Amino acid sequence: MPAGQQPQAREPDGGPQHPHPPPPTPALPSEVVPAYPPPESEDDESWVWTQIKAEARRDADAEPALASFLYATVLSHPSLPRSLSFHLANKLCSSTLLSTLLYDLFLASLTAHPSLRAAVVADLLAARARDPACVGFSHCLLNYKGFLAIQAHRVAHVLWAQNRRPLALALQSRVADVFAVDIHPAAVVGKAILLDHATGVVIGETAVVGDNVSILHHVTLGGTGKAVGDRHPKIGDGVLIGAGATILGNVMIGAGAKIGAGSVVLIDVPARSTAVGNPARLIGGRKGDSDKDEDMPGESMDHTSFIRQWSDYTI
Amino acid sequence: MPAGQQPQAREPDGGPQHPHPPPPTPALPSEVVPAYPPPESEDDESWVWTQIKAEARRDADAEPALASFLYATVLSHPSLPRSLSFHLANKLCSSTLLSTLLYDLFLASLTAHPSLRAAVVADLLAARARDPACVGFSHCLLNYKGFLAIQAHRVAHVLWAQNRRPLALALQSRVADVFAVDIHPAAVVGKAILLDHATGVVIGETAVVGDNVSILHHVTLGGTGKAVGDRHPKIGDGVLIGAGATILGNVMIGAGAKIGAGSVVLIDVPARSTAVGNPARLIGGRKGDSDKDEDMPGESMDHTSFIRQWSDYTI
Amino acid sequence: MPAGQQPQAREPDGGPQHPHPPPPTPALPSEVVPAYPPPESEDDESWVWTQIKAEARRDADAEPALASFLYATVLSHPSLPRSLSFHLANKLCSSTLLSTLLYDLFLASLTAHPSLRAAVVADLLAARARDPACVGFSHCLLNYKGFLAIQAHRVAHVLWAQNRRPLALALQSRVADVFAVDIHPAAVVGKAILLDHATGVVIGETAVVGDNVSILHHVTLGGTGKAVGDRHPKIGDGVLIGAGATILGNVMIGAGAKIGAGSVVLIDVPARSTAVGNPARLIGGRKGDSDKDEDMPGESMDHTSFIRQWSDYTI
Amino acid sequence: MPAGQQPQAREPDGGPQHPHPPPPTPALPSEVVPAYPPPESEDDESWVWTQIKAEARRDADAEPALASFLYATVLSHPSLPRSLSFHLANKLCSSTLLSTLLYDLFLASLTAHPSLRAAVVADLLAARARDPACVGFSHCLLNYKGFLAIQAHRVAHVLWAQNRRPLALALQSRVADVFAVDIHPAAVVGKAILLDHATGVVIGETAVVGDNVSILHHVTLGGTGKAVGDRHPKIGDGVLIGAGATILGNVMIGAGAKIGAGSVVLIDVPARSTAVGNPARLIGGRKGDSDKDEDMPGESMDHTSFIRQWSDYTI
Amino acid sequence: MPAGQQPQAREPDGGPQHPHPPPPTPALPSEVVPAYPPPESEDDESWVWTQIKAEARRDADAEPALASFLYATVLSHPSLPRSLSFHLANKLCSSTLLSTLLYDLFLASLTAHPSLRAAVVADLLAARARDPACVGFSHCLLNYKGFLAIQAHRVAHVLWAQNRRPLALALQSRVADVFAVDIHPAAVVGKAILLDHATGVVIGETAVVGDNVSILHHVTLGGTGKAVGDRHPKIGDGVLIGAGATILGNVMIGAGAKIGAGSVVLIDVPARSTAVGNPARLIGGRKGDSDKDEDMPGESMDHTSFIRQWSDYTI
Amino acid sequence: MPAGQQPQAREPDGGPQHPHPPPPTPALPSEVVPAYPPPESEDDESWVWTQIKAEARRDADAEPALASFLYATVLSHPSLPRSLSFHLANKLCSSTLLSTLLYDLFLASLTAHPSLRAAVVADLLAARARDPACVGFSHCLLNYKGFLAIQAHRVAHVLWAQNRRPLALALQSRVADVFAVDIHPAAVVGKAILLDHATGVVIGETAVVGDNVSILHHVTLGGTGKAVGDRHPKIGDGVLIGAGATILGNVMIGAGAKIGAGSVVLIDVPARSTAVGNPARLIGGRKGDSDKDEDMPGESMDHTSFIRQWSDYTI
Repeated sequence: MPAGQQPQAREPDGGPQHPHPPPPTPALPSEVVPAYPPPESEDDESWVWTQIKAEARRDADAEPALASFLYATVLSHPSLPRSLSFHLANKLCSSTLLSTLLYDLFLASLTAHPSLRAAVVADLLAARARDPACVGFSHCLLNYKGFLAIQAHRVAHVLWAQNRRPLALALQSRVADVFAVDIHPAAVVGKAILLDHATGVVIGETAVVGDNVSILHHVTLGGTGKAVGDRHPKIGDGVLIGAGATILGNVMIGAGAKIGAGSVVLIDVPARSTAVGNPARLIGGRKGDSDKDEDMPGESMDHTSFIRQWSDYTI
Repeated sequence: MPAGQQPQAREPDGGPQHPHPPPPTPALPSEVVPAYPPPESEDDESWVWTQIKAEARRDADAEPALASFLYATVLSHPSLPRSLSFHLANKLCSSTLLSTLLYDLFLASLTAHPSLRAAVVADLLAARARDPACVGFSHCLLNYKGFLAIQAHRVAHVLWAQNRRPLALALQSRVADVFAVDIHPAAVVGKAILLDHATGVVIGETAVVGDNVSILHHVTLGGTGKAVGDRHPKIGDGVLIGAGATILGNVMIGAGAKIGAGSVVLIDVPARSTAVGNPARLIGGRKGDSDKDEDMPGESMDHTSFIRQWSDYTI
Repeated sequence: MPAGQQPQAREPDGGPQHPHPPPPTPALPSEVVPAYPPPESEDDESWVWTQIKAEARRDADAEPALASFLYATVLSHPSLPRSLSFHLANKLCSSTLLSTLLYDLFLASLTAHPSLRAAVVADLLAARARDPACVGFSHCLLNYKGFLAIQAHRVAHVLWAQNRRPLALALQSRVADVFAVDIHPAAVVGKAILLDHATGVVIGETAVVGDNVSILHHVTLGGTGKAVGDRHPKIGDGVLIGAGATILGNVMIGAGAKIGAGSVVLIDVPARSTAVGNPARLIGGRKGDSDKDEDMPGESMDHTSFIRQWSDYTI
Repeated sequence: MPAGQQPQAREPDGGPQHPHPPPPTPALPSEVVPAYPPPESEDDESWVWTQIKAEARRDADAEPALASFLYATVLSHPSLPRSLSFHLANKLCSSTLLSTLLYDLFLASLTAHPSLRAAVVADLLAARARDPACVGFSHCLLNYKGFLAIQAHRVAHVLWAQNRRPLALALQSRVADVFAVDIHPAAVVGKAILLDHATGVVIGETAVVGDNVSILHHVTLGGTGKAVGDRHPKIGDGVLIGAGATILGNVMIGAGAKIGAGSVVLIDVPARSTAVGNPARLIGGRKGDSDKDEDMPGESMDHTSFIRQWSDYTI
Repeated sequence: MPAGQQPQAREPDGGPQHPHPPPPTPALPSEVVPAYPPPESEDDESWVWTQIKAEARRDADAEPALASFLYATVLSHPSLPRSLSFHLANKLCSSTLLSTLLYDLFLASLTAHPSLRAAVVADLLAARARDPACVGFSHCLLNYKGFLAIQAHRVAHVLWAQNRRPLALALQSRVADVFAVDIHPAAVVGKAILLDHATGVVIGETAVVGDNVSILHHVTLGGTGKAVGDRHPKIGDGVLIGAGATILGNVMIGAGAKIGAGSVVLIDVPARSTAVGNPARLIGGRKGDSDKDEDMPGESMDHTSFIRQWSDYTI
Repeated sequence: MPAGQQPQAREPDGGPQHPHPPPPTPALPSEVVPAYPPPESEDDESWVWTQIKAEARRDADAEPALASFLYATVLSHPSLPRSLSFHLANKLCSSTLLSTLLYDLFLASLTAHPSLRAAVVADLLAARARDPACVGFSHCLLNYKGFLAIQAHRVAHVLWAQNRRPLALALQSRVADVFAVDIHPAAVVGKAILLDHATGVVIGETAVVGDNVSILHHVTLGGTGKAVGDRHPKIGDGVLIGAGATILGNVMIGAGAKIGAGSVVLIDVPARSTAVGNPARLIGGRKGDSDKDEDMPGESMDHTSFIRQWSDYTI
């Protein structure tokens, strides 16, 4: 996808070149799909919530065996924050951390921090737009462990910032157990994030992840081990990190960069470049300023266009 | 899978009084191992079920602390489908997807589709035959998350085919949470599959996996990201995919090919060849037709015989 | 492990060369930190337990929302073995393996085997010393799935040695489900082990892991597939294995060696050398006998100091 | 009941002055009430099941907070036996008697014994007809512990008859714990039974209860203590036993008799007579044969019409 | 309650300015006990809540084994309504009615209806004042099933009034299962109610219970069976109903009346009179207006002062 | 016990005068019944435990559906105290009082107090001897809520005596919820107690119950309400209290007395006399000293031999 457009996609613009037609109305030509309001707006949340309820109602009608689940998780709730808080609380609770406690905690955080709710919405939109397997917002809300892990992290991060660190760490631990996603509560994560498949993702304490980033499963944003201070990667906006990539140390992955699956990256990667291999080497050059409208891989999810450059083995 | 090789091992052959050669006798040359009856036969299911019950009874007698578990999961059930449905239901249930609902779902699917039951049996035989750490059929049935994840996938796949997609996706999500194995319900998976260790396996929507395939943990059969249609790998019969291998895109891995651990494969791999490295390169040539009776790596599990060819670093 | 080094660190010596200053007082010069008593001593367990209770009490006072959890897991228990048994039992229980049964099992094993308790303590000290993100012993005890998985393995290993194999395998299975860590109960694991993040770690049946080893997530100590007997790696003392490394076959990783993240290692790695890449190659030479007092990477956690040697790609 | 009326009673029918034509229409002479198809008929079950689903759907639409419960218990099920088996299994399960096991047990019994299903239907009709507080069949099915206790007893009784006594006794025990209703599995209980409120009901091993009996809470049909054989009451058809009544010993309570609340009855009570007090004495005489068509108290639930005869204290 | 009596019953006193004369300061003559602030006042709730937290903290400090429970139920909550909602939700939840749903429901009702909160407080004060076995407010809040059943009923009653009847009935059913207390949601119950022991209490649909009433276990306020409309007892203020008493029909029990244990009451009982026996007869006359300051049995809990009048059997 | 006698114990045997043949050897006249070793003896416990295991094994073999339950509760345990502690813990646990905590508590108490264990054994023998419906010791251990409630009370009583009152009261509350049996932890209860059916039993704070007492369901040993100190009944040895009897106040029920079902007793009842009715009156006289060897109704369970004396209503 041409870089720079996607964000606009959500502004009220109505531009005919509109790149991502809201999934819910795929049959319509994208031009006539009214643009999303900006994700931060209250309207955006309510629009997504309306979609989710419509999807859940349709599915409950079609599949009685799932209706109880859909009513419990979605249709009985008056708002997205309550639905999400309920679902997370029931996923993450344990015999020593009861669901009612977690429900209270999630709901209080989502209520107090509109930016958290905006990020929830942006993540839902991102999953819907980027993942071809995502058949609806409710599918992401209910079934994507990466989505759920990120939202729990956002709450843990708020707790961490409030100096409620033991609670934040306990939450991290539950997410690591239940979703096999281990994000330190101090890590700073932007919005419109897609953690696809998500199993095995590890993000360290001093990592920073920008907006519009897509991270596949088994990705590590790790430390170098012996350092104590700022020791984890910084991921720019629009970065795409392929499955199993390992990025170690306080390195900078520039905006719009692409990290190949299975790469081991130990040094900086410039913006809009691609790093592949173990150890990673760069392929393709830095793109000129002129093409800044172009594809941001974190949004377009183009994993393999670099294949001809990189992989030249013969058979 | 090339007809006539390993499967023959299971066809009715010589040893008349020795119908079921326990996999545990690997010391014998495979030619003299009297074949199993074909896994599709009803007899095969009942033979395996008899073994499982005998193992469970032996273990319950020897270990009172485990007897309750063994009675609940195996010994109280009149058939393998009921035992498996019970076990899966209790593993995969959550506070919003109750075990009784899942039990009903699994049992109905296994009852209605004899091919599912045949695949269950074939997978049990495969684990027993290929995994030296597998000490019994009951060990696999009860403890192998890869085995359990695949069986749940089979049911999800049936639901998907019946257009009960939200339920299929909910099941996928539970398997991803509980076993950290993420198989899209649309993916087509053959029989006699071994998912060894299994944690982190990801298999995408349009992937196809043949028969007699062995897949280690952390293996990804992923998409290329930007494509929307048929975008995942096709794995031939008898393929062995090593731990942590990542295969991306609509590529073909030919029958009997071997993918080395940690490889990143982005293009086709011919039958009976070996791909290793990141990016993967082929080592060893295509074997001649004459040796088609030979080893299929998905069954022999030979991970490292190629080591001399590939890894030549000096110490 | 080179005799006399790390262990001394814990002996009451007060030596100025003291290599690992307890993390809790990082601001102080390490010389003035009173040395730990040897981990095997009863005193060490009671000192750590005292710390854990003090931390838990402080956190319970500061965070009422977590107090119930902290009392249930730590503050209501008279000893570390009871606290750990309780916590593990509630984490690992299922509808068919009840918490009371597991509690009994863990407590009986920890009571009967002082060496298990010593290993618990050594692991706690190791996490605290090596992981900059570890803010306290209670943090590790309660939240580190790697720590908990190892302790459950130790009990499973005892059961295996007592020929209670079905129970040991059931325990392995629960750990694989709950923590996504799969350690065969027959594997021999030393003490002062850190499994950092831990998701996806697989350790095979005939693997041996020495003391003071640090293993990151997604690490495989796997078999070569076709072998049946002794077929898994042997890891020496003080080894550091980076995230996603795959070590296959009955190879020897010498004491103090370092395995780079994402490496695929199929042959022996000499002591104090570093192996990186896929396939792994050695970088840096064997260090001389003279520097045997130096850094053991399993303890120092230096993941990337070899970066200049290995990774030379230009941007 | 007049044939054909009852069903119509619920259909939008003529009689404007007939707002709720309760199934029972007790005012009519019983001979002419054939109304319902015989309870054994499949039609009756399906008619009631249709009503239950309609009620549940109406309530789920009106009350989203309850919809999940209603879908789980009623709307996701294809038949009354499955719905009831699910509901009972989830009510009666414990950590050592899992819901899937109980579900199987209930469903198998209800499937194998049409007379059990007929009794379920008859009890639902009885509750609806006799209890003014019963606002629907689904209300009884889901919420009446007396109804649920009786259905569980019916299954326990089948098990007892099959000589599966330990299982029958375990079921009795669960019912006693969960519903505070203690019915020995050997007790013979008829159909169209109403256990109103139900808490504290005790029915002994050799008790027999006829059809169309209504029993209030705290009622005991007990033994005399020292006898070993046939030692419990025999309750005729159409008997009404008031709250807290205690009937002890192998006594006969004749058809249509009425036992006052709080009575202690130690000897036979003739048909159609009334016993009250502690010790109970008879009030009112045996009604003539001519009025045998009249009111059966077990169906009309007339608790206090005898008040003038019995209670003559002045204030 | 007659000032000064019951309180004195309990302890040496304290300062005259003492605002809350609760049992803790019983030594003061009742005249000088500054009556409780009206239960509706916010102050009263906060005073009781302060007491509850102090008691819970004291008990948590003294009894580590109970501390987790006390933090979960009391000490982690910022208010009495949250503590009560949490506790009720966890007591009444089932596999099909999740605790988070119930928590939401209770909290929303208690928040929206200050009169519910006032009644909660009044009931706590009543239990503390009237039940010699009640050692603290927290004891009642946490352990008295009668108290908890009444509070759940209050919420069910609100739901009933809002025409959310299926939900109200589901709640009634859970209370009947869990506490063996069956109160129809339509029943009108006053405040300062003590349900002592509570097991087996049944209160019908059209029953009305005044303020300051004490009801022992096994008490029935039942219907007469055949009536459909207003058919249950009306209980005046200050009434005491002894264990096992059965009151049937639309009868009036006048203010300050006393119903003896085991009585069966079928007609009106005048104010301040006593009814005993089966059938009940009145003993003692109506007390004069002059003594209207005197003992209200519902508050003084004098069960047996009438013994000489009534029970004259010789031994 | 002499082999081979026990079975005969229940068959119709000779000794006509023989009032209560200990179930194990009922065929013999009681004089020659080799008395059980004193219940305090270790031998008695081990003999009963051996019986329980034999019964459980027989039932597990015969009924696979129950085998898991039987192994979990009985057959996996090395001793009666562990089995009972496990069973009680799993029955009484809640989301805020975990089973592991209760297990520890019960086991510690039973281990520390041999007299508790002796009482457990005596109660098992009593149930077996007195209740014709009791088909085995394991039946009582596993299924009798009265037996389980009493054992939990014994532990609560020990806690109360140790001044761990909040924990004792929490335990009382769980027993009241789960079994509907409410025994104040301060109440003193002897041994060889049978609480038959048990629902609704209430025993107050200062009540004392002797040895060999049998108490039916709905029995209240209550206070008089206004008294604060010693205010509950004292029940002598060998007393039988019929269903629904209510005994109020600090009255003495002499050894060997019998209280009729439904009686309301407010004054002392002499030894070996019978009280019936509401209010209770005595029937039958004090038996002479000479027959002190005779029937103790608490053991013989003769509920109704007094019927001719008392109940003289004509029909």
